[in-house]
Amino acid sequence: MTTVNDPLVQADLTAPVTDDEIFAAHEGGKLDTGVARPIADPRTLSIVYTPGVAKVSRAIAENAELAKKYTWTDRLVAVVSDGTAVLGLGDIGARAALPVMEGKSALFKTFGGLNSIPLVLDTTDVDEIVETLVRLRPSFGAVNLEDVAAPRCFELERRLIEALDCPVMHDDQHGTAIILLAALRGANTVLDRAIENERVVIAGAGASGIACANFLLAAGAGDVTVVDSRGIIHEGREGLNPVKAELATRANKAGLRGGLAEALRGADVFVGLSGSTVAEELIATMGPKPVVFALSNPDPEIHPDVAARHAAIVATGRSDFPNQINNSLAFPGVFRGALDAGARRITEHMKMAAAAAIAAVAAEDLAPDYIVPSGVDPRVAPEVAAAVAQAARDDGVA
Amino acid sequence: MTTVNDPLVQADLTAPVTDDEIFAAHEGGKLDTGVARPIADPRTLSIVYTPGVAKVSRAIAENAELAKKYTWTDRLVAVVSDGTAVLGLGDIGARAALPVMEGKSALFKTFGGLNSIPLVLDTTDVDEIVETLVRLRPSFGAVNLEDVAAPRCFELERRLIEALDCPVMHDDQHGTAIILLAALRGANTVLDRAIENERVVIAGAGASGIACANFLLAAGAGDVTVVDSRGIIHEGREGLNPVKAELATRANKAGLRGGLAEALRGADVFVGLSGSTVAEELIATMGPKPVVFALSNPDPEIHPDVAARHAAIVATGRSDFPNQINNSLAFPGVFRGALDAGARRITEHMKMAAAAAIAAVAAEDLAPDYIVPSGVDPRVAPEVAAAVAQAARDDGVA
Repeated sequence: MTTVNDPLVQADLTAPVTDDEIFAAHEGGKLDTGVARPIADPRTLSIVYTPGVAKVSRAIAENAELAKKYTWTDRLVAVVSDGTAVLGLGDIGARAALPVMEGKSALFKTFGGLNSIPLVLDTTDVDEIVETLVRLRPSFGAVNLEDVAAPRCFELERRLIEALDCPVMHDDQHGTAIILLAALRGANTVLDRAIENERVVIAGAGASGIACANFLLAAGAGDVTVVDSRGIIHEGREGLNPVKAELATRANKAGLRGGLAEALRGADVFVGLSGSTVAEELIATMGPKPVVFALSNPDPEIHPDVAARHAAIVATGRSDFPNQINNSLAFPGVFRGALDAGARRITEHMKMAAAAAIAAVAAEDLAPDYIVPSGVDPRVAPEVAAAVAQAARDDGVA
Repeated sequence: MTTVNDPLVQADLTAPVTDDEIFAAHEGGKLDTGVARPIADPRTLSIVYTPGVAKVSRAIAENAELAKKYTWTDRLVAVVSDGTAVLGLGDIGARAALPVMEGKSALFKTFGGLNSIPLVLDTTDVDEIVETLVRLRPSFGAVNLEDVAAPRCFELERRLIEALDCPVMHDDQHGTAIILLAALRGANTVLDRAIENERVVIAGAGASGIACANFLLAAGAGDVTVVDSRGIIHEGREGLNPVKAELATRANKAGLRGGLAEALRGADVFVGLSGSTVAEELIATMGPKPVVFALSNPDPEIHPDVAARHAAIVATGRSDFPNQINNSLAFPGVFRGALDAGARRITEHMKMAAAAAIAAVAAEDLAPDYIVPSGVDPRVAPEVAAAVAQAARDDGVA
């Protein structure tokens, strides 16, 4: 991997990424397992394997709590997916989802210093997924649920939180919500505005759209209007699933009806989580100095250069434009903090603390093209972890 | 881990192992996950995670075979246990079994160069374990089944081999059988004897006892007499489980009746896999120049110094005596060879090839106190892997 023929070594950091590079970087996968201590002599073998290991197993058999101290599970996040909502690719199945989960595990290690293994499941049945993870419970310390389609993901996350006495978080929901809130705080500081006075329009009512709406409302947003493929979600709309119906009781205080055009007129913030597009003409109808977060990947809902003709601040999910709003700023620190504190679950307060910590890292250097830290900023995860661990202790879940 | 206060660094290689050392070596567990490539800049992030990874996922969605090339699963062994027969500790449960499984995974990496993750299961139901691994099938490339109690382990292994299109091996059975056969070949060369002319007595009819009996018979042993807690297993004995009843049709050709005393009288080889003891007086009744393999861990059936008063060759499962008969010489190379060849399963021929390869490494230096290579001999696993891969191709399972 360090030969001069390695395309990644040759490439400079601003060169366009080629398909050859991408596939070369995935050969053999992106993860390795390693040993904490080398085993090169019979004496060490007798310590880490038979007969020595029997003493550790016997101690854990007598006191299950010791598993936290003497196994790797206390620092181990299982990245779990059924492959039903992978990036913009949809339901491509467990096997094809695995490269994404390996990437996620690699980010847990790189930014959170946590061990992580991908577990991809050849079933999409909620009962079966819960049952599988309950059976495997002694094998890991936390679950990052990933790329599970809505609305099934809501029930699955709820059921797993009930069934497992460890941190569980569906990152597509809450990781996105955390980084979105952090970015919005950054934008509002730049624009000298307060979230309490803003009306936010979210396009997309999948896992991330619903979670972002709930999180912004919990953070005090003045109003949030969510638009799905059939228009604005409002109370009384026919055929809403239970999750959307519940959201409708708290969102869209303005009582709007119609579609994205009606929602965006006069709005302060647009959040694209839809995988579709939004016309420049609609962005032009937003209120003064609007904020546009076009977060769909790989294709933002509107090109950032076009959005910038109207918006005061523009962000995307991409690393090749300024203001990248990427979950990788959130999940490594959230899980690290939860595991550091020995938290049994991840509370709303812990997520809020994570958003505040991310925003705080960016605070000193805020500018219209710097509302969040870079996705590879090594300062972020430790700050997030410390804030999340403190919140866990405050909440009494640690 | 490299400070001078580390007890492992301070200890010399012949010092007795202390409990403090053992527990210190297990703090935080014995495994780590690592990343194949560092992720330190946004460009690399965009290659190994979004948006780049989407191209790899899409490619696998179109051709599932590409998962072997572009994920880590093709080199990944899941070490699976329900914790029902852990070392000499018995049914201590999944959580307490985990340190053993971590040790196993560490050995896969150290000697086989394979990635490995422990998966311990909070169920002992065969249907549920099979179901769980079928659901997880896209997550790994092979299954090392470990420390599952007999006779359930026989059905479980058979069912997993049927259900999963990948190498599956219950190491307590076949790893033990492989290294036992290799050791017996070494001993027989030293003593200028042939297995075809020998009567072998196996004490213990658990997973390893049954598998060793079957494997020695398949390798041409003259006769094998297996003794369980109720005496010699023979045709017509009341209350035999199906596995023992089947073995009885092929073993104990001498038609012996009674217990260990009757079995050992005049026998050529004793193999202890029972976790109990054998009296010196019984060893004294064996045939000329007997071979004694007292393999129970941590306490051999008879102290090797006592056995040596009568036996021409003595071996144990311990690293602190000569002739350590330890599975760690077998499983890393067996799985490495199976995965190198892309084998769909592990055949009898592949296991025989593994035993022959281990014996061949020791062949040049054979002596009464050197009938198998050292458990940390780095030559063994590559030789075993090459032989197993060749056998897989010969068998047409690759």
